Amino acid sequence: MKVLVINCGSSSLKYQLIDMETEKSLVSGLVERIGIDGSILTQKVEGKDKYIIKQDMKDHKEAIKLVLEALLNKEHAVIESMDEITAVGHRVVHGGEKYSDSVLIDDEVIELIKDCIPLAPLHNPPNIIGIEACKELMPNTPMAAVFDTAFHQTMPKVAYICPLPYELYEKYGIRRYGFHGTSHKYVSQKVAEVMNRDIKDLKIITCHLGNGCSLAAVKGGKSIDTSMGFTPLAGVMMGTRSGNIDPSVIAFLVEQQGYKLEEVNEMLNKKSGLLGISGVSSDFRDVQMAAEQGNERAKLALDIFNYKIRAQIASYAGIMGGVDVIVFTAGIGENSSFARKEVLKGLEFLGFNIDEEKNEVRGEVQEISTKDSKVKVYEIPTNEELVIARDTVKLLNK
Amino acid sequence: MKVLVINCGSSSLKYQLIDMETEKSLVSGLVERIGIDGSILTQKVEGKDKYIIKQDMKDHKEAIKLVLEALLNKEHAVIESMDEITAVGHRVVHGGEKYSDSVLIDDEVIELIKDCIPLAPLHNPPNIIGIEACKELMPNTPMAAVFDTAFHQTMPKVAYICPLPYELYEKYGIRRYGFHGTSHKYVSQKVAEVMNRDIKDLKIITCHLGNGCSLAAVKGGKSIDTSMGFTPLAGVMMGTRSGNIDPSVIAFLVEQQGYKLEEVNEMLNKKSGLLGISGVSSDFRDVQMAAEQGNERAKLALDIFNYKIRAQIASYAGIMGGVDVIVFTAGIGENSSFARKEVLKGLEFLGFNIDEEKNEVRGEVQEISTKDSKVKVYEIPTNEELVIARDTVKLLNK
Repeated sequence: MKVLVINCGSSSLKYQLIDMETEKSLVSGLVERIGIDGSILTQKVEGKDKYIIKQDMKDHKEAIKLVLEALLNKEHAVIESMDEITAVGHRVVHGGEKYSDSVLIDDEVIELIKDCIPLAPLHNPPNIIGIEACKELMPNTPMAAVFDTAFHQTMPKVAYICPLPYELYEKYGIRRYGFHGTSHKYVSQKVAEVMNRDIKDLKIITCHLGNGCSLAAVKGGKSIDTSMGFTPLAGVMMGTRSGNIDPSVIAFLVEQQGYKLEEVNEMLNKKSGLLGISGVSSDFRDVQMAAEQGNERAKLALDIFNYKIRAQIASYAGIMGGVDVIVFTAGIGENSSFARKEVLKGLEFLGFNIDEEKNEVRGEVQEISTKDSKVKVYEIPTNEELVIARDTVKLLNK
Repeated sequence: MKVLVINCGSSSLKYQLIDMETEKSLVSGLVERIGIDGSILTQKVEGKDKYIIKQDMKDHKEAIKLVLEALLNKEHAVIESMDEITAVGHRVVHGGEKYSDSVLIDDEVIELIKDCIPLAPLHNPPNIIGIEACKELMPNTPMAAVFDTAFHQTMPKVAYICPLPYELYEKYGIRRYGFHGTSHKYVSQKVAEVMNRDIKDLKIITCHLGNGCSLAAVKGGKSIDTSMGFTPLAGVMMGTRSGNIDPSVIAFLVEQQGYKLEEVNEMLNKKSGLLGISGVSSDFRDVQMAAEQGNERAKLALDIFNYKIRAQIASYAGIMGGVDVIVFTAGIGENSSFARKEVLKGLEFLGFNIDEEKNEVRGEVQEISTKDSKVKVYEIPTNEELVIARDTVKLLNK
């Protein structure tokens, strides 16, 4: 059985075709600049040359059409007929409170994803376009929606209700939702498996550190808190996002310094974080390089980035009454031994020590705590596409 | 030597006359409704009846005039001449980055407090009015300014720089300042004294839980982080203040729901926190009573209040690499055994157990951890007025 996984951004589309017997990705591809001049599709198949199609695509429907053509292309692909695609799994960012798990897509589901647009105005619309394009092009293939928010729907009220007038929750759905759920779910399950422990017995802190960063407190297999909130802006500091700040800063900039609210919002989302403090880049590696060359603000940006994550890890140990294992994943979490080491500095009192040699290994499932550590620390490459494919198969088999 | 301590709010004035030989408060009083119909002064002297003056006061100068009259009133007071007041100590909320300690007041200091008005538009103006009124009425009495922000000026950049474009710090002074400094300073020094330990060797977490709430991480006697930020809105949830929230909520309410920015700001400061969630009251005791009578939202409000503080305590243990002692102070912190117990629930892994009987004692210097606890927990009544008086004397003696 093969499952096509689709992840639509506003002008991009990522896809993978996964063989569910082996859980291996057969094909992975990326379409960029959809609806913009210079659209391009890049497809990779193991052991073959990259397949690149440069052709203007005016919308996601044209992009998906081209993806299907690429998948069937004799020279580059591994399937002979579209019938080999048993199902399609779509990543959908916001499922609101309606979805605490993945669902098979029907008209009602599409309507409800549309209802969540106000909560994710940048993300849900391209997700819907992707779903509708597939529906038209492969009308007989079942599709599932896998939500970024779903894994965190197990959070208790104490974690998801904001300290605001309660009416804002009832009227507008203002609450903490959390994101990166697919990744937090995958790495928390994976680490339990690798440790050969029942996830029900574990207190896990998962640190998804990429361009966006979020942490989750996973107790007994369930997310009980996570650092992103109403939107993916909240929580720890990220590449360009501020994370939590004193909310008064916004009114101060608007009322006393003459900024427009939308400018401030743009600033918090796109010009803050590593980029804002360092003035160098939003990319952790660039900032690290600048710091190594003596750039003081780059050094400060890294210090603050690590400090906020360190504090968040400790606070999750606090709300779970301790921790059994800490997991690092995503771009920075998997690849930066420096970030892991710095984040964990001073947290040894929780019950671990770091094996510096193991910590140097990049992008592999790897324990990085010493053998005698009571609390374990792992790096685990995330695999959101695999979770989406697995969920899709599970729904088909129901 | 006697020191008069003055704390001016926008329409109120609190004062105490403290005998510095015994460090005892001789007189304490409160003037309310300054500049509003029905102004009233209430003065208490131990062992005497309350002295109440109902008389319209159009400004703080008239209020201070009346305070001086009340202090000298034969029947009610304890001093015979104004010459007995050696010095006046003023509480000033915001000293910006200019003051990392208390200072003797001269024209330059007044100017610099004025410069900080944009950072504390509600608080610094009445503080200045109080200083100028005293200057006119008691021109030969030395005065000191004791800043709420000063104790936190030892915070390192990693704690005080916001994850925002760095220019906002350079241009507008947007950074984390912290407040309640006088209280955090007092209780951290007091707990070291009570434990008979050198404060330089201690990692202390101080929890000032009153109408406003803030926590501080005090390492080696110095504040290295605190939960309030650019303004006293930030940090943990409070009576009416939200504390930290996803900053996106503000733009969502304004841009998508038609709120005015100033309405949102007012809401975050005055209609959120315990009041906002419970819908009952901003007073912890009222909310607790409602919860005990079965009000679900009141119960939720308390749970969230305690949860945020619990998470903040753990995060401070994280950034200090552990903790030696946790201190509770201010209205809720000193008096609510319930709050202390609930806040600490689940944090025992840090190395303490609570002695439930001792925890029932209210408003006294009291260890509430068990004898065998590695980490200690104390309640310590705060005394900001005494710190102000002490700092004033220290400056006089320089």
